[in-house]
Amino acid sequence: MHIIADNLTITSTRIANAVQQADPAPIIDMVRFCEASGAGMIDINSGPLTRDPAEKMTFLVESARKATRLPLLLDTSNPAAMEAGLLACQGEAVINGFSLEPDKLAHILPLARKFNTRIIGYLLHPDSSVPADGAERLTVALELSARFSEAHLPPENLIIDPVVPPLIWPNGHTQAMDVVQVIRILPDLLDYKVTTIAGISNLTSGPGNAERKPVFEQCYAAMLAAAGLDMILMNMTHTGTLAAVQACNALTGTKIFSWV
Amino acid sequence: MHIIADNLTITSTRIANAVQQADPAPIIDMVRFCEASGAGMIDINSGPLTRDPAEKMTFLVESARKATRLPLLLDTSNPAAMEAGLLACQGEAVINGFSLEPDKLAHILPLARKFNTRIIGYLLHPDSSVPADGAERLTVALELSARFSEAHLPPENLIIDPVVPPLIWPNGHTQAMDVVQVIRILPDLLDYKVTTIAGISNLTSGPGNAERKPVFEQCYAAMLAAAGLDMILMNMTHTGTLAAVQACNALTGTKIFSWV
Repeated sequence: MHIIADNLTITSTRIANAVQQADPAPIIDMVRFCEASGAGMIDINSGPLTRDPAEKMTFLVESARKATRLPLLLDTSNPAAMEAGLLACQGEAVINGFSLEPDKLAHILPLARKFNTRIIGYLLHPDSSVPADGAERLTVALELSARFSEAHLPPENLIIDPVVPPLIWPNGHTQAMDVVQVIRILPDLLDYKVTTIAGISNLTSGPGNAERKPVFEQCYAAMLAAAGLDMILMNMTHTGTLAAVQACNALTGTKIFSWV
Repeated sequence: MHIIADNLTITSTRIANAVQQADPAPIIDMVRFCEASGAGMIDINSGPLTRDPAEKMTFLVESARKATRLPLLLDTSNPAAMEAGLLACQGEAVINGFSLEPDKLAHILPLARKFNTRIIGYLLHPDSSVPADGAERLTVALELSARFSEAHLPPENLIIDPVVPPLIWPNGHTQAMDVVQVIRILPDLLDYKVTTIAGISNLTSGPGNAERKPVFEQCYAAMLAAAGLDMILMNMTHTGTLAAVQACNALTGTKIFSWV
């Protein structure tokens, strides 16, 4: 599994302040930390950016680029911010992301063609609700893949995110296992080796036992790895999960990594 | 996954001395520790017992029974020791185990019928070698299942062990992932919900990095859990693995276990 850092997010006070004060230093520090910890890509979660979206995303991307040549995932639902980020991004960018929501199909998906980039597609219903079970997720995946083809985009540029549920949801455990199975089944369903991504921080979001959260995150990462997940979006300060992902990569042969 | 303790083994000096001196106390202590730690069954690994096999296995079983009412897995290749253990075992016993090896088919398998117990079947070739890959393991499973039926034993009494390889084997990683897939496929292949067991201590046996070994064991346990493994044989002093198995049971819904 490729490791993608989810630490560069506007929900972090430090990053939010950096954007507010147009100070690149905290962003540069964070990106350097993530790359040094083993991230192969950096997600830039700017949020919806209601004020000055283009300016702020440009600042985030340019700041990150001062620290790394890694691919950057541009994570916003704001099309103006997304386009500004894509314009500012020297080197590889990945659009994060679209779904069957009409706004996303109309305003985000076309940017993948315009900028010839990969794009993450979320398995969500058009009203942005999460599918109820694995079968619904697979139905959405077929529809998403069809919309992708209709947009004249090459299948290898689609990265599917089946949406990891928080365990505190009433049916969170069942949905979490559905997601594992969806990742295993997707390449057969779509009839090509579609790339998959999952964000595991979501699994243990919300209240919960601080000692058990890492155990759940690590076990779930291993389950996703065995199912064939390609890209894992994670918090790089979770050293236990990082060690687990590296062990999984050794086990599944994704990466040469001696266990001894 | 049901948790089975592999701590009561003759390879432990303390247990070996207890057998030698006919002192039940260390055995009772160990069984109590395993049950208190969450084991649902106890494996009694007496080894081949070349001297006084029946007497020693009887002593082990009777000592363990002073401490627990849990099912006991009788783990020996010696038919005389096995029969003595089965005779001594008040409460449930499980025979551990047979394979396609002619001696096991002739002398161990019939005991499952005589004592009407469940029995573990190892996916090994008749010459006791480990199958080279997943396909070979599945072929052996079909043959093993056929021999089981021919012995007029009910399918629900068969517990299949696909044999977890040590990662230090040249192809250990590949074989470990083959085992995960075999566990997932077996119920479809045999066309009933066959019970499966795996001993995970074997994965990290031999030399290796003491910090990484637990990480590999925990990740592998999670992979096996997601594949549908029913019984996990493990070292109950490995608290990290125990926490992982409990988290996996919560995730897969094997056991009601709040993560919060």
